[in-house]
Amino acid sequence: MSGTTVGLAARAFDSGRVRSAVDERLAAFLDAKARLAVAQGFPTEVTDVLRDLVLGGGKRIRPVLCVAGWCAAGRDGAVLQVAASLEMFHAFALVHDDVMDRSATRRGRPSAHEAIADRHAGRPGAAQLGVDAAVLLGDLALAWSDELLHTAGLGGERFAAAAGVLDAMRTELMYGQYLDLLATGQPSADLEAALRIARFKSAKYTVERPLQLGAVLAGADGGVWAALSAFGLPLGEAFQLRDDLLGAFGDSPETGKPEAEDLREGKHTALLALALRRATGADRDLLTGLWQEMPLGPGQVARIRAVLEGTGARSGVEELIEERRCQALQALEDPGLPPAAGAVLRSVVSSLIGPAR
Amino acid sequence: MSGTTVGLAARAFDSGRVRSAVDERLAAFLDAKARLAVAQGFPTEVTDVLRDLVLGGGKRIRPVLCVAGWCAAGRDGAVLQVAASLEMFHAFALVHDDVMDRSATRRGRPSAHEAIADRHAGRPGAAQLGVDAAVLLGDLALAWSDELLHTAGLGGERFAAAAGVLDAMRTELMYGQYLDLLATGQPSADLEAALRIARFKSAKYTVERPLQLGAVLAGADGGVWAALSAFGLPLGEAFQLRDDLLGAFGDSPETGKPEAEDLREGKHTALLALALRRATGADRDLLTGLWQEMPLGPGQVARIRAVLEGTGARSGVEELIEERRCQALQALEDPGLPPAAGAVLRSVVSSLIGPAR
Repeated sequence: MSGTTVGLAARAFDSGRVRSAVDERLAAFLDAKARLAVAQGFPTEVTDVLRDLVLGGGKRIRPVLCVAGWCAAGRDGAVLQVAASLEMFHAFALVHDDVMDRSATRRGRPSAHEAIADRHAGRPGAAQLGVDAAVLLGDLALAWSDELLHTAGLGGERFAAAAGVLDAMRTELMYGQYLDLLATGQPSADLEAALRIARFKSAKYTVERPLQLGAVLAGADGGVWAALSAFGLPLGEAFQLRDDLLGAFGDSPETGKPEAEDLREGKHTALLALALRRATGADRDLLTGLWQEMPLGPGQVARIRAVLEGTGARSGVEELIEERRCQALQALEDPGLPPAAGAVLRSVVSSLIGPAR
Repeated sequence: MSGTTVGLAARAFDSGRVRSAVDERLAAFLDAKARLAVAQGFPTEVTDVLRDLVLGGGKRIRPVLCVAGWCAAGRDGAVLQVAASLEMFHAFALVHDDVMDRSATRRGRPSAHEAIADRHAGRPGAAQLGVDAAVLLGDLALAWSDELLHTAGLGGERFAAAAGVLDAMRTELMYGQYLDLLATGQPSADLEAALRIARFKSAKYTVERPLQLGAVLAGADGGVWAALSAFGLPLGEAFQLRDDLLGAFGDSPETGKPEAEDLREGKHTALLALALRRATGADRDLLTGLWQEMPLGPGQVARIRAVLEGTGARSGVEELIEERRCQALQALEDPGLPPAAGAVLRSVVSSLIGPAR
């Protein structure tokens, strides 16, 4: 374990290495939990389904950013198990998110509630059982992300700093999800509200907090902390905006989710807010009347996509992304960052939001 | 804060004092979270609903047992905030439990998902929004129970010991709930299976682990740990068996839950298992055919109650409770326990399972 950490500390930042090191820890943890379940006579479907979700896909964005923050702040101390804990937390968030959205697929497979329902097919109420059991499965993943954190071998001071970042991150994510839930089915022209949801649900959760977590694990000072925030928030908003485009225009193989799911669910995104600001006549009627007739058919999805293009909303979101890319790159000029940080952090930008246009 | 702890350390164990000290901390924590929500523009209904649930009722069983374990093990160090963290965790468990059971009331008020749906009455899909939002509300309560733990000011070694107990407790509870979920709607004569669910869902979660948590916070050794387990497990099973009787025979004002909810939901309890073992003829047909016709009307509930009495299942459960009471009291003779522990622990027995018959 410390061998891998020393390896990471000695070399250039390598996101592929981070991914495999984190996956090793997650696999070992889930194997131990599966053995515990067998020994105690607990249903093994819990670890089976969680293992399929956690190890069956995913880009490990948050662990990679955590290790990037740790590298940017000087690479001192342990980081990998905390990074793995972030990924387990993310598994929790995905499972509950799919429950709330009643989303059928995730990472190109049946979502957790669907996978559990499949295992109990034929039993009366299997679909509801799947949903209820997935609530518990998510709860377990959340508790297990804590267990990974608690057993990461952090000293008292570093633990307290890391826990502070994680506690803030969790509260922010959950409020962001709550805002998202309240706004779903009621999209409006309110761009600020959409960006606010993006900030809490994604920018802080996916980018700013993982970077800061890594940094405090390496004992970073307040200057590094603030610089990572100035870099991470615009980058994270851009990430969500890119995700909004995928949620409207991406296809299933690309997203691992049902096609155009954001549109079908009536998510309040910046993309739709821009379109609602600009659409007139029949286009406007289409967008505003939309969520009375869910679920949308393929014909309606095609028409909405045409409106998103025709109103310039799609290119407007691309512009918002580029503005934020510039802000993030500019933040890397901050003299508070160690000299080596710039290269590490620049390398994550295009992997998160694609190359500049 | 430490004033209260010193107060607790200096006096005889007083569960009323524990309750008010824990409530003070929970109220202060939720007030701070409510202020944060206002400052950040988050929906305040989250803290409002959670506050109503947490401070609007409840017996504080787990915090009281945690402090009892701490007293039994020598009253060294801090305990109250960790006890409060247990109660916040319990709020999480109740919110998700009510979501899974679609239970309408809790502690004599609308359950969290009902309370949230009420706040959005008139909006399309308000009931589903309430359920989805309650999943998030429970998630927040779980995250906040961690925050209470992380900020309790425990030193590295005591923190690690406490986190170990809590991590085990969470996994056990969630698997217990999972077993319960799988068995619901399919009651059988399998008494062992029912007792197994009771062990994980209640005996360990409600009694054994809170006692052990308090003990490790006071720096207890392995002898105390084992004795608390020998005391806590039978007491905890008896507690669940008493709860099964309440879930079948109790009325709403007594339980704070809809009347006879266990029966209506088809929970697999020891009470039903005993009845199914003993019932014959029409009684047996009534019990086995039951969960095809949910929801049960008042006439059916009355008939089932008559069968539970007539088969001797009710008095059989009372016997199981008394056996376990004896086992628990016998465990207090263990010489591994400090001399003062017996009085503290004896005082919690009747408050949990009523006086001996």
